[in-house]
Amino acid sequence: MRTTARWAATIGLTAVTVCGPLTGAAVAAPGSAPSSLYAPSALVLTTGHGEGAAATPERAVTLSCAPTASGTHPAAGQACAELRGAGGDPGGLKSGDDVFCTKLYDPVVVTVEGVWQGKRVSYERTFPNACTRDTYGALFAF
Amino acid sequence: MRTTARWAATIGLTAVTVCGPLTGAAVAAPGSAPSSLYAPSALVLTTGHGEGAAATPERAVTLSCAPTASGTHPAAGQACAELRGAGGDPGGLKSGDDVFCTKLYDPVVVTVEGVWQGKRVSYERTFPNACTRDTYGALFAF
Repeated sequence: MRTTARWAATIGLTAVTVCGPLTGAAVAAPGSAPSSLYAPSALVLTTGHGEGAAATPERAVTLSCAPTASGTHPAAGQACAELRGAGGDPGGLKSGDDVFCTKLYDPVVVTVEGVWQGKRVSYERTFPNACTRDTYGALFAF
Repeated sequence: MRTTARWAATIGLTAVTVCGPLTGAAVAAPGSAPSSLYAPSALVLTTGHGEGAAATPERAVTLSCAPTASGTHPAAGQACAELRGAGGDPGGLKSGDDVFCTKLYDPVVVTVEGVWQGKRVSYERTFPNACTRDTYGALFAF
């Protein structure tokens, strides 16, 4: 099993589609709990007012993107699609430039922790206000 | 909102039942996305072979415990009940002493990240082998 784990880490983001035959796991039915067939993608996201991770999380949602999009995130499917488009890096999301936001400084912090396709994710970003945060798409809008 | 956040942090684990009237949030229907009525409880758990958080996560599941138990954790309801019994601290879970495990050293790491009733959770523990890990109940058995 340790060898399999090292192998999975080596091939990184492509692991999800090819791991199955090597791990010998049974094929999981869509919607069932993830088996080792899938490189895991499970995240928890928080947001709260303030600066840095010391801010009290006011909301927190779960997001799982394999085998299907699920979780308490209100737009799990779109959030997973955005993350896939950014290679699993929340920092890779782009702000929509067609939205006007006030310059009021009322900072909000977003954190993303967990695993994306077998690799650990630990992300934190402070936005000047909630409007600016929400221009980055569905992932942070919960 | 910042005042509310500080207040929520002060009352800590009791926040979930009394926050609603003060935040003025609408009552969320059971099963819908968490609103600010609920102090958030959303976690992501990982397990993998090795020692310390550097171990590659082989499995990862989400677990949400408010308003209802949900997530890709295969026993979300029981896992939430165990966490409630331990005051949200995964380190407070006790090993069942009626299970015999080999002394083989093949370490596995469990991590729990996220938020429990509005407070951040960051937990990591290395067990000598998977059998020993599984004696701690449903939370780590995924």
